This record gives sequence, structure tokens and C-alpha cells, in this order.
Amino acid sequence: MNRPHDRKADELRAVTIQPGFTVNPQGSVLMTCGRTMVLCTAMVEDKTPSFLKGTGEGWVTAEYSLLPASTDTRSPREASRGKITGRTSEIQRLIGRSLRAVVDMTALGERTIWLDCDVLQADGGTRTAAITGAFVALCLAAWELKQQGVIRDFPVRDYLAAVSVGILQATPLLDLEYVEDSVADVDMNIVMTGAGKYVEIQGTAEAAPFDRAELDALLALGEAGIRRLMELQRAALGEEIHHAIIDCQS
Amino acid sequence: MNRPHDRKADELRAVTIQPGFTVNPQGSVLMTCGRTMVLCTAMVEDKTPSFLKGTGEGWVTAEYSLLPASTDTRSPREASRGKITGRTSEIQRLIGRSLRAVVDMTALGERTIWLDCDVLQADGGTRTAAITGAFVALCLAAWELKQQGVIRDFPVRDYLAAVSVGILQATPLLDLEYVEDSVADVDMNIVMTGAGKYVEIQGTAEAAPFDRAELDALLALGEAGIRRLMELQRAALGEEIHHAIIDCQS
Amino acid sequence: MNRPHDRKADELRAVTIQPGFTVNPQGSVLMTCGRTMVLCTAMVEDKTPSFLKGTGEGWVTAEYSLLPASTDTRSPREASRGKITGRTSEIQRLIGRSLRAVVDMTALGERTIWLDCDVLQADGGTRTAAITGAFVALCLAAWELKQQGVIRDFPVRDYLAAVSVGILQATPLLDLEYVEDSVADVDMNIVMTGAGKYVEIQGTAEAAPFDRAELDALLALGEAGIRRLMELQRAALGEEIHHAIIDCQS
Amino acid sequence: MNRPHDRKADELRAVTIQPGFTVNPQGSVLMTCGRTMVLCTAMVEDKTPSFLKGTGEGWVTAEYSLLPASTDTRSPREASRGKITGRTSEIQRLIGRSLRAVVDMTALGERTIWLDCDVLQADGGTRTAAITGAFVALCLAAWELKQQGVIRDFPVRDYLAAVSVGILQATPLLDLEYVEDSVADVDMNIVMTGAGKYVEIQGTAEAAPFDRAELDALLALGEAGIRRLMELQRAALGEEIHHAIIDCQS
Amino acid sequence: MNRPHDRKADELRAVTIQPGFTVNPQGSVLMTCGRTMVLCTAMVEDKTPSFLKGTGEGWVTAEYSLLPASTDTRSPREASRGKITGRTSEIQRLIGRSLRAVVDMTALGERTIWLDCDVLQADGGTRTAAITGAFVALCLAAWELKQQGVIRDFPVRDYLAAVSVGILQATPLLDLEYVEDSVADVDMNIVMTGAGKYVEIQGTAEAAPFDRAELDALLALGEAGIRRLMELQRAALGEEIHHAIIDCQS
Amino acid sequence: MNRPHDRKADELRAVTIQPGFTVNPQGSVLMTCGRTMVLCTAMVEDKTPSFLKGTGEGWVTAEYSLLPASTDTRSPREASRGKITGRTSEIQRLIGRSLRAVVDMTALGERTIWLDCDVLQADGGTRTAAITGAFVALCLAAWELKQQGVIRDFPVRDYLAAVSVGILQATPLLDLEYVEDSVADVDMNIVMTGAGKYVEIQGTAEAAPFDRAELDALLALGEAGIRRLMELQRAALGEEIHHAIIDCQS
Repeated sequence: MNRPHDRKADELRAVTIQPGFTVNPQGSVLMTCGRTMVLCTAMVEDKTPSFLKGTGEGWVTAEYSLLPASTDTRSPREASRGKITGRTSEIQRLIGRSLRAVVDMTALGERTIWLDCDVLQADGGTRTAAITGAFVALCLAAWELKQQGVIRDFPVRDYLAAVSVGILQATPLLDLEYVEDSVADVDMNIVMTGAGKYVEIQGTAEAAPFDRAELDALLALGEAGIRRLMELQRAALGEEIHHAIIDCQS
Repeated sequence: MNRPHDRKADELRAVTIQPGFTVNPQGSVLMTCGRTMVLCTAMVEDKTPSFLKGTGEGWVTAEYSLLPASTDTRSPREASRGKITGRTSEIQRLIGRSLRAVVDMTALGERTIWLDCDVLQADGGTRTAAITGAFVALCLAAWELKQQGVIRDFPVRDYLAAVSVGILQATPLLDLEYVEDSVADVDMNIVMTGAGKYVEIQGTAEAAPFDRAELDALLALGEAGIRRLMELQRAALGEEIHHAIIDCQS
Repeated sequence: MNRPHDRKADELRAVTIQPGFTVNPQGSVLMTCGRTMVLCTAMVEDKTPSFLKGTGEGWVTAEYSLLPASTDTRSPREASRGKITGRTSEIQRLIGRSLRAVVDMTALGERTIWLDCDVLQADGGTRTAAITGAFVALCLAAWELKQQGVIRDFPVRDYLAAVSVGILQATPLLDLEYVEDSVADVDMNIVMTGAGKYVEIQGTAEAAPFDRAELDALLALGEAGIRRLMELQRAALGEEIHHAIIDCQS
Repeated sequence: MNRPHDRKADELRAVTIQPGFTVNPQGSVLMTCGRTMVLCTAMVEDKTPSFLKGTGEGWVTAEYSLLPASTDTRSPREASRGKITGRTSEIQRLIGRSLRAVVDMTALGERTIWLDCDVLQADGGTRTAAITGAFVALCLAAWELKQQGVIRDFPVRDYLAAVSVGILQATPLLDLEYVEDSVADVDMNIVMTGAGKYVEIQGTAEAAPFDRAELDALLALGEAGIRRLMELQRAALGEEIHHAIIDCQS
Repeated sequence: MNRPHDRKADELRAVTIQPGFTVNPQGSVLMTCGRTMVLCTAMVEDKTPSFLKGTGEGWVTAEYSLLPASTDTRSPREASRGKITGRTSEIQRLIGRSLRAVVDMTALGERTIWLDCDVLQADGGTRTAAITGAFVALCLAAWELKQQGVIRDFPVRDYLAAVSVGILQATPLLDLEYVEDSVADVDMNIVMTGAGKYVEIQGTAEAAPFDRAELDALLALGEAGIRRLMELQRAALGEEIHHAIIDCQS
Repeated sequence: MNRPHDRKADELRAVTIQPGFTVNPQGSVLMTCGRTMVLCTAMVEDKTPSFLKGTGEGWVTAEYSLLPASTDTRSPREASRGKITGRTSEIQRLIGRSLRAVVDMTALGERTIWLDCDVLQADGGTRTAAITGAFVALCLAAWELKQQGVIRDFPVRDYLAAVSVGILQATPLLDLEYVEDSVADVDMNIVMTGAGKYVEIQGTAEAAPFDRAELDALLALGEAGIRRLMELQRAALGEEIHHAIIDCQS
């Protein structure tokens, strides 16, 4: 089983997390993972969805989009089609749900953080890159709110990152790129907290169902990958925000 | 931890699978699981999506809908809103993907089987009931094709059923009904084949992330529940179709 | 002129009206007329459309839908098409308008009763079956409101039922089923009150215009059929609700 | 019962039928009935809907629209709302269905005549004015096809006109204008052929159901009004086209 | 360079401006320019868009539509397509923006004037005819508001008219009709005030870019044409409104 | 009149044109102009719109979009609203039309070049930056087609760039940034070829109409700015492509 560029089965692609790529939003991160490139931004809005009005709690929500030229064959713009696809809807619900798992909504107060994940280039693993990058953008925006005195307590309670794993020719692999993903038998996305707990596990086997031993191998690969991604998140955020997260945890 | 009607943690609700509820579609099943009631139908169309034209392979696809009065508070009709929700889109993609995992598309030939899962009453577990019922409708439609000589080989290669599991007040539970589901910490849907392999695992922890021990407990509960559902599927299908599935497997 | 199953020109198909088919909505009826099968539900919402706000009056409105597998050839789901067809819009306006004719909106007070008519199987006469079944669901919901003390006076002032009539090969016929309807020269739907007055007459002659004598024959057939349907409505509702309607009339 | 401008119960408003109002379409008529003003055009397209391909038969279809400023309070443009209302859909289906009743589709051949009825000013009776005016536009377009040798036989087999009748304060009235229509107890539209046969009867009684005697009175009023409209249609069409219709009838 | 009907390069087509074509809206004008025919209406609504609430200022907005039969080949109705085209959107933004340039929004007060420009027949220059006609409809509506005492000061500060110019076979031409417009190298729309200042210049050269000398020639032709259109506007409005505009200017 | 950062009236903001920002599309350019940042990509599709089928000619078309976080206040995603705004539609029509003016469609052959201009950050002048950047992406894609031997002749016949100019406090200014643009009296976009000819002039004066002298000043400022932008385009494209353009011109 030879992977492109002689990558090992348990090796991540080259990952970069560049904060401050744009300056308008409170948090902005250019996240790359190999050729996959996602612009993750966080913007704060001073109101919540109506079901939270008056509760004192905030909300975190995400939107995801593939730029038309991000894929090998041009993806028609959803705005031109007049509606988002099922795939987009599924992914943006996943991103929002995942991030909400580590946010203290009472500390955030009655405001919404919008996470926009726009895929500038797609080469597999865009949804997990979006989650990992959006976490950093979220922390940057939350930090700015705290610095400006808008909120008193930092509302992010733990790290959160995500990675994809899969089975290809009977071999469990970490972080599939597109040429691998498109022919994999099993595809699984794992979202995990800094405390090592699962937030989401989504495993799909359209081609060949998988047994318990394979599941165990995938979970192990994923956890190791997520650990390394969290180190990169910490480096991108800096020690001050890192300590805010740690303090919030305890 | 007391469940409604003194149900045990590892106990399914009362399940009925009534074939032939309507007569127009080739397969029609009224599936009930406690108060959850889903009409699952299978209709055959003599063409496939364009990406399969000329390949000799068929397709299986699903649509899912909540009737407006199926829920406690009326759910506005998606046709009136002008688009389907993200939740609906996600569920119908899951149903179609799951069923495709046990269908031999070459044996089916260039035709599409449409599985329509309309929830007449919703009380938790509608998506897993839809998968379990749609499997039966699919087999009935495939059997009719074979009886009419339209196809030579029965195309369903294995049983397929699904169940939900979850964690509520730190207790892993099988087959959550709505009052449980709405306050659960973790919610997981498991789709499995007759051979005991996973087709889908979708575990979500918006309220409280879960650890590995909890995951293991959930997987065990789910597998046991699915075994019992498959016995009911077999009874509903009858021995002739059961043997067709078994033969197809070997 | 031989009808399927030797039915006479002035004979209804077998009709059943099954109350309580589902339990979530305040009123729920499975209405069958031959192979035509419509689930009619009534749900109460504690507000009215904005044009009635502050008037003290309520509203009754209906939605109608064909399930995809209800027809011989699958009907694409309107939610997937993104809009309802002209036919659906026309039918649901007819159902709502008809039922409003026998409801005392002041007795109902500022609330809306939603009647959802979902056709599980279509074999001609779905709109008239929907009206006849929805009337029963409406009475059940109104009765529950009265029993709970939400309203003081029962708001349904008279019976209401509907039937289709038509001309086929120069013969006026009652209650056309699909094979008749699809080749009829004239198709007419009649909605009538218990007092024998017309609420709606919709006669259409795309194939062959009809003269006054034919119109008279159709009206007579329709009235007789509606009388029989009202006996079945009374049996399904029970004597207590029957008397509430009779009292309301006087 | 005093009508505006001392109109009698069985009196039409002033009617004008102006052919050739615009010159692009094959048939163009400005139809006025009192203040109601409808531009009815007929355009020929050299293809039919797909269900008619290869049958040698043609099609007649209609679209109807209220201009925003046609009503007292501005009606938002349906193109801006993104969909047509149920009312529009119902009316345009009625217009198309009515006109098809007098067209010989084989004589028309595999082409479509589009009738566009745009209401420039609305003061009651727009749908019946649209039918009456569109009939003239249809004849003009059909005549041009025949004159150009595109078709051999004139395809319009009989006259067709429509009028509204209603009951107001217990009095049956012909041709309701808006101030009458908006408070009428019963509203009925009648579409009739030159031979005096019914093509459509649509009677609606939201406010007060009507009995058989009232129905008879309405039908008589309507027939007399339609006779007078047909004289005006004949004058607008000229003798040559009149004879083509008469010849086609026999 | 021969133009149809021997029109000179700097000659307008025959223009008529007929006020009061319909009576429902406060202002109504049938504007014709050769075969181009646009119904321009102005209706007043007693509220403004939300961004103006509480500012004391009013708003002027426009909508534009081609009737299906206005063009040689039938233009599908935008309401049927479910959305307006880019061309329509661009034109109605232009009309609204242009008219706002001469309206004193404080004098108008917190109300909206809706200008609806419906093209009954299209033969080139529909957007400039719409602006020129809508200006007259706007003045009529504003005048009615002043006459009724709803507003104190006449809010239209200057004349406004528009014309198209273009280059065809190297010749600059005024007021292109469709057969010219469709083959022109350059197409330019000019909107100007009575004071001779530019409100909009939109020049487009898809076929052949133009140089500065050509630009100068086009601007000169356009200004002369607009002068003549303003004389016709003045005649249509009458002296009383003319003086109101003049007074408002000073 | 002091501009931000002491910029002179005739000074462009800092401009960078970075080719190869992404690698999937044939042409990809990150264009920045001050804080305005637009990702311009060019992708080739091997078919044309239907109106060009069989003509041997190609097509160039553009789509434009603001990322939600590109603006100070988040711009709701058009895909979520279900339709593009009038502003977007207008801009993308302008970009496509402008670029088509310098492309030899016969040399391109029956293929379409899609130019996607996604605004990552908006600070005024996004549409002109999009045109200037898209021109470079277009040349890169066309060059790749020529290098691969897909086309024989380089199809881009001349340079093309665009800039905005405006009048603020009676001063004509080059290249307005957002804080200037939002309060300008006049806003004009100029698109010009390398030969110094106009492709588009769009001048709008919602606040204060402008006279001929002001128009002349704006045109002079714009031309000078466009000259400098073309030098940067040349540097980004390299000498080889520069000569291909020059050769194509002659």
C-alpha cells in the first residue's frame, strides 16, 4: 500500500494554520492540509436565534461552501442553483454542532458567532480541516470579545479538532487525500476534545462494511492524528489563549 | 433510571412490520416502533441517474418526509417552504447510502428503486425505523421484479437494519423514544448487515462528549437490538425471500 | 356501460372512516373510498393569520399532498421540486374553503385548525375523500377543544361532505374511480351541507361540453351519494358529537 | 338592491374588445369590462409539450397575471416573490382548459398557442374577461396561421365566452364588479360554448350555501350574459372569421 | 447608413406620453416610442424600507418587466421561472436610482413611491422609455399627494429623462430600435436632468471598443434627444405641475 | 480633501497580483488592492452555451461573490437566501462582458472559460479589482491551453483593466476605498483596453448629478490609473505571455 509522496499510513499531510489572513472578521484563519485550503472566519453578531432570546445564552453556527474552482471539475455555485446541496447542509450542521460542544454558551452571552468555512481548494478532508481551522478562528474571536471587555469569562472550555480516517485496500489510513478518499471502502470522520472524548464519530461504508477490529484500528489512528493537530492549534493561538482554554477547562 | 412503561435499558419498543399496506408500489410496508409509524414504499423506475447510463448498473435512492401532523407541534410542510431542511436531506442520504450497501447493482440492472419513507407519526427513532422498514419494502419490490422475470438474480445480498442508542443520565439505552432522545447526552445511530458488519455509525454528543468505554457499551446494545429487528424482518418477508437473501450472500 | 366490480351508476365504492389512526393530532382519520386512502388530520394552533388578529375569530385551513408512491407512476415529491403544483394548490384551497362554510369562527375563537390531507393511495376522488374525511377530523379536534374547556360552544354548525360525479360514454356516474375518471367527458365535484345546500360545484368538460339535462342528472346523483356519506360520518363521530352538530345548527 | 351606476341585476358592464392593441403577437386584444382591463395575446410556438410529441396534435395553454398597479392596493409582483400564487395558478389552469374545449387539436397540428392574459386594471371578473378576450386573440392567431398556409383547416370549432354571476343580499346578479364581488354570498363563474353547452361551472359559497332555486337563477343569468358577449366577440372578429368558426362547427 | 423609415441619425422615433391610461394608481402613463410601448405606473405606499424608518425620509423604487408577448419570440414569464433575470434586476435598479436623483426625500416624507414599468411591446430602448415615462407617472402621483394635502412641498426637484445612443457601422445614432440595437458595436444609455447634468452614463462595447471622439459624439446626440423628450414630458404634465417642478428647483 | 494614509487624488492603493494562489484551476490569481482581496480563477470547460453550439466559437463568462466575512457586517450567503442579489448579477454580467471584448472567440474554439471572482475581503473597488485580476487568470488559462496544444492561436487580443473613480466633496479621486465610496457623490467604473479604448463606462450619480467638466476629469484620472494597472498585469504574466498578447493584437 503506497500512499502519494510515500506518506505513512499514520502520517498527517503538511498542515499550516495561518491566523489573521483577512482582517475584517474577529477571527480569520487560512487552514491548509496538503493541497486542501480552507478560509475559516469567525464573526460575532449581537443577537441569537429566536429560540434563545431571553435565555442569556449564546449560539455558535457554521456555514460551509466549496468555491467553484476549488475542485478539479468546476462545482456550480450553490447561489446560482438557488439552493445548497444535501452534502453542504450536512457538513455545515456537523461543523456547528461540533464547535458548540466546547463552548460555554452562558459565558458567551446572547450573541452568535458565525463560522464561515470557505474551501479555496479541495483535496480531501475539507470538513475536518474546516472544523480544526474554525476552532482557531472561534478562539480568536472569543479572545477579542474578552479583550474588549464584552464578555468576562473566556467561553471556550477545551480544544477541539477533527480528522478523517479510512480503509483502502484493507489498510487503515490517516488523513485521506482525494485520490485515496475517492476509492476508499470506508470513510470515517472523528471529532474529539482535548480531553480525548468523542464529539462526533461518522463512519460510512458504502463499498464494504467493516468489522469491529477495523473500527478499533480507525479510532486509534484518528486519536493520534487529532493530538498532533491540537499541538498546531496551540502554536497558532499562542500561549495566552492556550491558558485561557486550560483555565476554562478546570 | 426509569424508562417509560418500565422498559429495560436493552429493550426495544414494540415493533410491527406490516407488508402490503398500500398496493400501488411494488413494495409497501407500514413499520411501527412504539408510537413511531413510518410508511416505507419501494417503486421501480426503468431508468437510472445519468452517471450510470450505459454501465449496466442500477441505483437505489431514498426520500424521507415528516407528515405535518406526525409531530407534537405541527411541522410546516417542506413543499410549502419551498425546500427541504438540512435534517431531511441528511436523513434521506443516510437511508439511500445504507441500503445501497447490500444491493448488487449489476443484478438489479439499469433501473432505480425509489424508497419513500413517510413518517405518519414521530416518537423518536424515525430514521432507523425508516431504514429497517425500507429494507423490507426493497426486498418485496426486488422479489416482484424477479418473479416477473425482469431480473434473473435476486439483488439483495444481506439483511440490513438500524437502531438508535444513546446515553441518558450516564446510562446507555437502546431505542430511545422522543422523551428520552430530547434530553440524551449522546445519540448514536447504527446500521448493520446480517453478517454483523457496520454500514454506518453516527454518534453525536452535543451535550457531553463520551469516552471509549461508553462507545463500547453503545455498540454492544445496538448490535443486540439489530439482531432482534432482523428476526422481525425475516418473519415479515417470509421464508422464500429469506432464502433468496441467504443464497445471494453465499 | 359496465363499471369495474359491476358497480351500479349510482353506487358509491366501499367507504371506511377510521378515527384515531394516529394519536398526535387532535383529530386523525384514515378515510378510504375503494382503493383511495387519505390520512386526514386536524391540529389546533393557538394563533390565526395576521388578517384576523384581534377580531376574536378563528380560521380553518387545509393542505393536501400526494405521497410519491400513492400513484401508479411515482409522483415526484413537491418538496424536492421546490414548489407545489397548481393542482395541489387548487385542491387545498377547495378543501379549506369548503370546511370554513360550516364553522362558526367566533365560537372557535382566535385559533387555527390545520387540516392535513395526505393521500396514501390515489384511485380517483382524492379531493372529495379528503373533504369528507377532513370534516370528521375537524369535528374530533373541535370536540377535544370543547371537552378541555378551551372553547365553550361547539363551532361546527352542520355536516359537510363531498363526492365526485361524471359523464362517461354519455352515462352519468357517481364516485368515479381512476380508470373511469381518466376517460370521462365531464368531471364534477360537489360539496354539500347536511341541510342540502351547495357549498361548491365545480364541473369541468374538457372533452365534451354538457347540456342542462346532464347537469341536472349529475346534481341528483351527487346529492344522493353525499347523503350516504353523511351517515358514515355520523357513525364515525358517535352520537355525542352528532348531537353537538345538530344543536349548533338550530 | 341598488347596483353602482344604477345597473340592472341582469345587465353587463360596458364591454369593449379591441383587436390589434399590440402587433408582435399573432393575436392581441385589449378587453375591457367596465374598469376591468385585460391584455390578451396569443403567440404560436412551433412545438408542443413533451407528452404530445409525435401525436400530430397541438396544445393551447394560458398564463394569467395581475400587474402590480392593477389593484387598489399594490399587488407584489409574483416574479419578485419567486412563485405564483395559488389563485393565479387556478385561474390560468381554468383559462387554458376552457379554451381547449373548442379547439380541434389535430387541425392545429404540433404547435402550441400561448395565451397571455395580463390584467392592466382589476375591478372584478378578471378571469371571465380573460377567457372572453383570449378566445378572440386565439381566433386571430389561428386565422393568421390559416392565412399563411401553415394550417389547412381553421381549428376553432365554436364560440366560447365566460361571465361571472353571484348572489348579493339574496339577489342573483350578473357580472359582479369588485365592490359587489367582495361582499357577495355566492360567486359563480360560467364558461359556455356558442352551442349553449357548459364547459365550466364553478360556484363557491364561502359565506352562505345556496339552494337549487338559487342555482337555477344564476345559470339563467349567466347564459343570457354570455349570449351578449358572443355578439361582441363576433363583431370584433369580423364576418370572415365568424364564418370560419361556423363552418368548423358543422 | 440608412435607418428604417429613413430616420436621420439624430432623430427620435415618434413618441407619445398618455397620462391616465389606467385609473387605480396615483400616476399612470402609457409611454410609446415607435413600437416600444411601456405602461408606467406610480403607486404610493405609506411606509418605507426598514433602513429609513424614523428618518423622516421617503423612498422611490422601481420594478420592470417584459410581458411575455412583448418580444418577437415569447419571453417566458419570470414568475413561472421563479426568479427575475439579471437583465431585469439591472434595469429596475437603474430606473429606481435614476428617479431618486431628482426627488427630495424629506419633502416626500416617510412613504414609498413604487414605479412599475411593464413593457407591453418591446422594440429597443425599453429601459430609457421606462425612465422617461416613469418620471411623468412619479410627478402625477406626487402632485396628487400635494393636492390631497398629504405632503406640503412638491418633492420633484428637476426634470429627468433618458435616451439610448449607439454606434452602428461607425455611425453614432440616436434612439436605436431593435433591428439597430441588436447589431450595434456600442450601446449607451444616458440619463440626464433638466439642468443638463448626468445622472447615469452606461456605455458598453461588447463588439468594438470606442475611443474618446466617439464618446463625445454619443454624449452630444444623447443630450439633444433628451431635450426633446423633456418638452414632451412638460406637455403631458401640464403647466401647473411644470411650475411646481421649476419652483422646487430654485 | 485628505484621503486615508495621505493618499493623493490620483494615486492607486497598493496593488499586488499573485498568480498560482491555488493550483486546481488553469488560471488562479490572488488580486489585492489595499485591503480589497479577490481570488480570481479561470477554469476551462469543453462546451459552450447552447446558442453557440456548432458555431466554432467559444465563450467567456464570470461569476462574482462576496464571502460572508468579507464585509464589515456579515453578508448573508446568497446560497442560503436561495438567490443572488441584483448587485451580484449586475457585477458578474459586467465582468463577463468586459473580458469578452478582448477575446477572439474563434481562436478559443468551442469551449467556455469560467471566471470566478470571490471577494475574500471587501474595501471598495471589488468589481474593478475582479476585472483586472480575472484578466490575468484568463491569460494564464488561455496560455495553458496553447501550451498543451489544445488551441493553436493565443486568443487574448489586448490588455484589459478596470478602475473606479469618483467625486467626493467636489474633488475627483482615483480608486475609492470603502470609506470614500460610501459617501461619494459620483461613482464611476471604467474598463479600458491596452489600446486605450473604452469597453465600459458606468457612471452613477445618486447624490449629485455631474457636469461635463467633471466627467472629463474622471475619465482622465481613470485612464492614468488603468495604465499603471496594466504594467502590474504585464509583470504578473511574464514576458512570454505579454508577447503573445502583443502578437495577437497586430
